[in-house]
Amino acid sequence: MKKTDTAPFAYEGLDRVMHEKARLGVLSSLVAHPKGLSFSDLKQMCRLSDGNLSRHLQVLQEAGLVEITKAFEANRPQTTCRLTRSGRKRFLEYLALLEQLVRDAAETAGEDFGQARTRIAPAGG
Amino acid sequence: MKKTDTAPFAYEGLDRVMHEKARLGVLSSLVAHPKGLSFSDLKQMCRLSDGNLSRHLQVLQEAGLVEITKAFEANRPQTTCRLTRSGRKRFLEYLALLEQLVRDAAETAGEDFGQARTRIAPAGG
Repeated sequence: MKKTDTAPFAYEGLDRVMHEKARLGVLSSLVAHPKGLSFSDLKQMCRLSDGNLSRHLQVLQEAGLVEITKAFEANRPQTTCRLTRSGRKRFLEYLALLEQLVRDAAETAGEDFGQARTRIAPAGG
Repeated sequence: MKKTDTAPFAYEGLDRVMHEKARLGVLSSLVAHPKGLSFSDLKQMCRLSDGNLSRHLQVLQEAGLVEITKAFEANRPQTTCRLTRSGRKRFLEYLALLEQLVRDAAETAGEDFGQARTRIAPAGG
């Protein structure tokens, strides 16, 4: 038996750089805003402190997922963050893996998963 | 504007105990095996070392997600791990949140997400 067959729950495709919760938030914000987001918008959308957002952006930038440009707008420095082309591709693949993981687990959980869905649905949604 | 409205990507429901990659693997294995799994089966399915699995199981047990029972089988000690009732419920809610996160991102990514799905699909699947 091949080693890979025996470890169906090792989830090796779930890149730790993208899987970390705060970075997952940053990447999701950016995939929803293809033109990029300012540092302050990102900070607010992800509810991160300046220090935390800087640290996570650095990790994402070093991994080639995010590009950061600095420019002046109305005489003020403006930092814009965008997914790189390959970052977008890799993040969508990561999301497709997550989708598969959820689908596999949902299948085994049957109706209980439907109930969990109902419980987490936003009241107004 | 309420603070919660401004941080749509903070993902506060994504419990860090369950979100950690190795523990996500352990929980997914256990949700697929309601009768529980032995320590050695879990270790193999998640491709973890004894030390790592022990450490993660302890975190999951302390969080009330997993219960661990020790018994003798054929004169050998056998450790069995199971999701607790509330652990199963909480893990399914976590998965429902992940599903929502993927769905939201997939919507904004459009056709590119379909292509990512195709790329990650197992060759034999």
